[in-house]
Amino acid sequence: MNVLIVYAHPEPKSLNGSLKDFSVKRLEEAGHTVQVSDLYAMNWKALLDAHDSVERQAGERFDPSRESKHAYANGLQSKDIEREQEKLKWADAVILQFPLWWFSMPAILKGWVERVYAYGFAYGVGEHSDARWGERYGEGMFAGKRAMLVVSTGGWESHYSSRGINGPMNDVLFPIQHGILYYPGFDVLPPFVIHRTSRVDAAKYAEVSDALGQRLDALWTTTPIPFRPQNDGAYTIPDLTLRADIAPDRVGFAAHVE
Amino acid sequence: MNVLIVYAHPEPKSLNGSLKDFSVKRLEEAGHTVQVSDLYAMNWKALLDAHDSVERQAGERFDPSRESKHAYANGLQSKDIEREQEKLKWADAVILQFPLWWFSMPAILKGWVERVYAYGFAYGVGEHSDARWGERYGEGMFAGKRAMLVVSTGGWESHYSSRGINGPMNDVLFPIQHGILYYPGFDVLPPFVIHRTSRVDAAKYAEVSDALGQRLDALWTTTPIPFRPQNDGAYTIPDLTLRADIAPDRVGFAAHVE
Repeated sequence: MNVLIVYAHPEPKSLNGSLKDFSVKRLEEAGHTVQVSDLYAMNWKALLDAHDSVERQAGERFDPSRESKHAYANGLQSKDIEREQEKLKWADAVILQFPLWWFSMPAILKGWVERVYAYGFAYGVGEHSDARWGERYGEGMFAGKRAMLVVSTGGWESHYSSRGINGPMNDVLFPIQHGILYYPGFDVLPPFVIHRTSRVDAAKYAEVSDALGQRLDALWTTTPIPFRPQNDGAYTIPDLTLRADIAPDRVGFAAHVE
Repeated sequence: MNVLIVYAHPEPKSLNGSLKDFSVKRLEEAGHTVQVSDLYAMNWKALLDAHDSVERQAGERFDPSRESKHAYANGLQSKDIEREQEKLKWADAVILQFPLWWFSMPAILKGWVERVYAYGFAYGVGEHSDARWGERYGEGMFAGKRAMLVVSTGGWESHYSSRGINGPMNDVLFPIQHGILYYPGFDVLPPFVIHRTSRVDAAKYAEVSDALGQRLDALWTTTPIPFRPQNDGAYTIPDLTLRADIAPDRVGFAAHVE
C-alpha cells in the first residue's frame, strides 16, 4: 500500500521527528511504500494568495475559491500544489503528524490544507440537488482512502478528558478529523495522541513508539470513526441538519458520530 | 479606548476587507484609537521556526517553547514579534477578523498566534501549585482586556446550528475562543458571524455592516461568554477536570461555560 505522511515540525531531532522516522521504517518494513511531505524541510509556502496560480484570471479581485477553481480546472496551479495533489491521489492512506499548537495544527500544515485542497479537488465537488449537497462528508475525491492523525501535546491526558479543561481531545480534533479529513471522503481512524511530551524519556519513548507501531500495523484493519454520511438520508437538504428522528437527544459534534 | 484589529484576508476589496474598513471608521468615529495588523499586507511571516530569535541558544536542538521562553526573557525576540506584543499590551480590546477556512483561522493568522504568543507572555505564566496551575483560563497577561471574533463563512447558518452538519459554530470556534483568547486572560465576547458570503449583495451588506456596527458600539458593555476560570475551585488540580458536583450531567465544551 502507499502511505503519505504529511509532517509538520521544525526540528528533525524532536520527539515528532523521531516518531516520523520510526513510522517510515515500520511501514517500509511491512512492505508499504512511503512518501513524506516534511513541510518545514520543504520550506512549504504556507500562505494562500494570488501567487498560487501560474496565470491569474484577468481584471478580477482575488477571490480564493473562484481562483482555485479556475486554476485547478485549467492546469494553472502552482507546481508545489500539483505535486502534493499527486501524492494524495497516489496514497492509500494519509497520516498527518504534528504537535498540537494552540489547540490546532501548526500554521505550516494549515497552509498546506488551504492551498492543496483546491476547489474541484477537495471541495466544490459534485452536484447540488434536493437529494445531494455535493460530494462531501463521506464522498469525494478521497473516498476509499484512510487517514489518521498523529498528534503530540504538552498537556496531560486528563486535561483532554470528557470533563477536562481543554475539552475532550476528539472534540478539539473534530474540525480536523471531520472538517478536513472526512469532508473530502477519507475514512478517519481514531487519532494517535502522545501526552506530556516534556516527560517522554527513553523508557516512555519505547512505550510510545511501540504503541504507534501497533497502530501502523493495523492501519488497514482499524475501524474508522463512524461519522455520518451527508447524502444517505440522515440530514435534511439543503439545511443539512440531522433529521429529527435520528439521535433526537444529541446536539453538537457527538451527534455526527453513529 | 484602544482597539487592535488583527485581520487576515488576502484581498482588500473582499467582503472582509470592506468590513474591516467599516470597523475602523465606526470605532474611530466613536472616539476610540484603532490599530490594524493587516497580516497579508504586512507579509507576516507565518512559520514559527529557529529564526524567531535574534540569537539562538547555543548547541541546542530547536525546542519551540524553550527557545521562545529564552528569547522573550532576554529581549532576543524577532522585532516583528515584539511589535505585535506591544500592540496587544496597548489594546483594551482585540478583534480577530478572518474568513473561516477549513473550520479554523487562515494559516497566516494561526502563525501570528504561534509566534506572538510567546512563553512567558501568553503561556508559561504564573506558578504551579496544589491550588493554582499557572495564570491561564481567566487569568494571565490579557486579563481585563476584551476580545471578539469577526468571522465569515460560505456555509449556511443552519449548517452550523446545534444539529447542523458542520457542528455548532460556538463549538467550531471553541479552540479559538477558549483555547487562544480565554487562555491568556481575555474576556471573550460572543462572535460576530457572517454566513453565506457569496450571497452578500448591497442590501445584505447594509444589513451585515449595521449589525456589526451595533456590536462594535457595544464592545465595552456586551456580556462576555461565561467560561469557567481555572483557579477558582471549579477544577481539581493538577488533573484539571471539572469537580464532580459542578454541572454533573455535562461533558465536552459546553461544560466549561457557566
